[in-house]
Amino acid sequence: MWNLPVGLTVFSRGLLARPPPSLLLKLPASHQNKKLISLSTSTLNRAMSTAAFGTMNQPQLSETFLFRQFFDRTSCTYTYLLADTQTKEAVLIDPVIELAERDRKAVQELGLNLIYALNTHMHADHITGTGLLKKLIPTCKSMIAESSGAKGDILLKNSDKVKFGNFELEVRSTPGHTEGCVTYVCHSQSMAFTGDTLLIRGCGRTDFQGGSSDILYDSVWKQIFTLPENFTLFPAHDYKGCTKTSVAEERELNPRLTKSKEEFVKIMAELGLPYPKMIDAALPANKVCGLYDLPDNLKDLMN
Amino acid sequence: MWNLPVGLTVFSRGLLARPPPSLLLKLPASHQNKKLISLSTSTLNRAMSTAAFGTMNQPQLSETFLFRQFFDRTSCTYTYLLADTQTKEAVLIDPVIELAERDRKAVQELGLNLIYALNTHMHADHITGTGLLKKLIPTCKSMIAESSGAKGDILLKNSDKVKFGNFELEVRSTPGHTEGCVTYVCHSQSMAFTGDTLLIRGCGRTDFQGGSSDILYDSVWKQIFTLPENFTLFPAHDYKGCTKTSVAEERELNPRLTKSKEEFVKIMAELGLPYPKMIDAALPANKVCGLYDLPDNLKDLMN
Repeated sequence: MWNLPVGLTVFSRGLLARPPPSLLLKLPASHQNKKLISLSTSTLNRAMSTAAFGTMNQPQLSETFLFRQFFDRTSCTYTYLLADTQTKEAVLIDPVIELAERDRKAVQELGLNLIYALNTHMHADHITGTGLLKKLIPTCKSMIAESSGAKGDILLKNSDKVKFGNFELEVRSTPGHTEGCVTYVCHSQSMAFTGDTLLIRGCGRTDFQGGSSDILYDSVWKQIFTLPENFTLFPAHDYKGCTKTSVAEERELNPRLTKSKEEFVKIMAELGLPYPKMIDAALPANKVCGLYDLPDNLKDLMN
Repeated sequence: MWNLPVGLTVFSRGLLARPPPSLLLKLPASHQNKKLISLSTSTLNRAMSTAAFGTMNQPQLSETFLFRQFFDRTSCTYTYLLADTQTKEAVLIDPVIELAERDRKAVQELGLNLIYALNTHMHADHITGTGLLKKLIPTCKSMIAESSGAKGDILLKNSDKVKFGNFELEVRSTPGHTEGCVTYVCHSQSMAFTGDTLLIRGCGRTDFQGGSSDILYDSVWKQIFTLPENFTLFPAHDYKGCTKTSVAEERELNPRLTKSKEEFVKIMAELGLPYPKMIDAALPANKVCGLYDLPDNLKDLMN
């Protein structure tokens, strides 16, 4: 258990929800109690640091919940296969077009029925595999947030549920990296798929596709950091070979999101990142499930 | 449940253990029953194909068992962190020297005590991180099979147990890729770390370091494929972005190991693989936990 000042629980929406540093100063007095008001950010950090993230109880997965994580070495994208072993219904999150055949083979070899291929957002660094997977597995439908501006068989809104067998993903709107980013939360398995909204010890850039540092900060603190502390978080990418993290870890250790909103916005504004090298090819294709005006090296995959 | 000819159960040592095709012909009559003798390999394959690997019950991990999988994009090596969240004792399997600092940071951030850094074998494609981790975390001891010919604080033999907190790994000698390969089996968590002995739909090469296709085949069939069908297998490498497999899948779908031993030996002899590009740097270093005659680009890590 966490060793925390009592006042912190006033914010709790999950097992534990620490308010973002900036929120502490903005909350109306009616939402604060006296003990909390007296806590500075550094006090909060010291209190949280008494917890060791490795001593939390690890989430328990159902025996009938099949889970596979796949990696694309080129774009460092993670693709996730989730299935109900009883009904065999399966979903794929964030597939990559060059590896759609790998994903199809995994689905087929495991004897699963892929019903949905989902994107967390309209990616700018790779072309989605959803369109190709629909060709390879005709029963599969594509899904993406309506707010992404992309086409899809099913356009998702905040709070929608994506059901597969006896499991479901809650759609949480988490804009900021792009306007149409969502996080998929599988409450029964204590896991969430955060796309580029929250990465392991990082976050997606906010300077394209309607991105906003201000909005991303709120998305993370309100929609992700309010999940129970031991929820496992699976990002769309990692560049250092890490495969997962937890709510508690990121809430305490994320070098950007643990800052105040003002500091965060400044950090993001000063990143000085280069123009995304894949964006001009990826965005037009990803508006239509990856199947438009493909670069020559990808056209062969469609035949 | 599997739909299997009754005779197959005569071989069962786990939940299900199909005999390798070559074994069917070699068993003395006293070990065969009449139903089994009449089954050809193709009949066996058809019988097994009625099972969908995706419908097996998935292994349940303990709430106090922490597990992280890490990846090295250069050598495509997987490193595994296992820990008891109650006692905080942790072990790392197959760390890579360039990423030892990443691994140390993960251990420290999770509040764990790394007690052992283990290798599944003396690697030829990367330099082990065990020696550097010992410098970074002085309480950590290195482990490797005595039969590897490498140095280590603790030299392991077949059937040894590696204990961390309330968990343990059974050391199973699985030579063939090298003379000193082992597979670490965590029975309570239904998982095994197969090194290069068994890869996802593949296996390690057998043409260096005392390798032998004949011996590898027996190692896989006797020490790995006899584990319960739903045990998760974690390899030392994957080159297609897959992160894990299961005993049932590999026993049925591995394109090499499902062949007869004679066919397997022929396949391995005809691979025509190039000389391992890292072997001349890796082997001398890996004989001493990675800390000998390092290439220039790695010397800085030691300071």
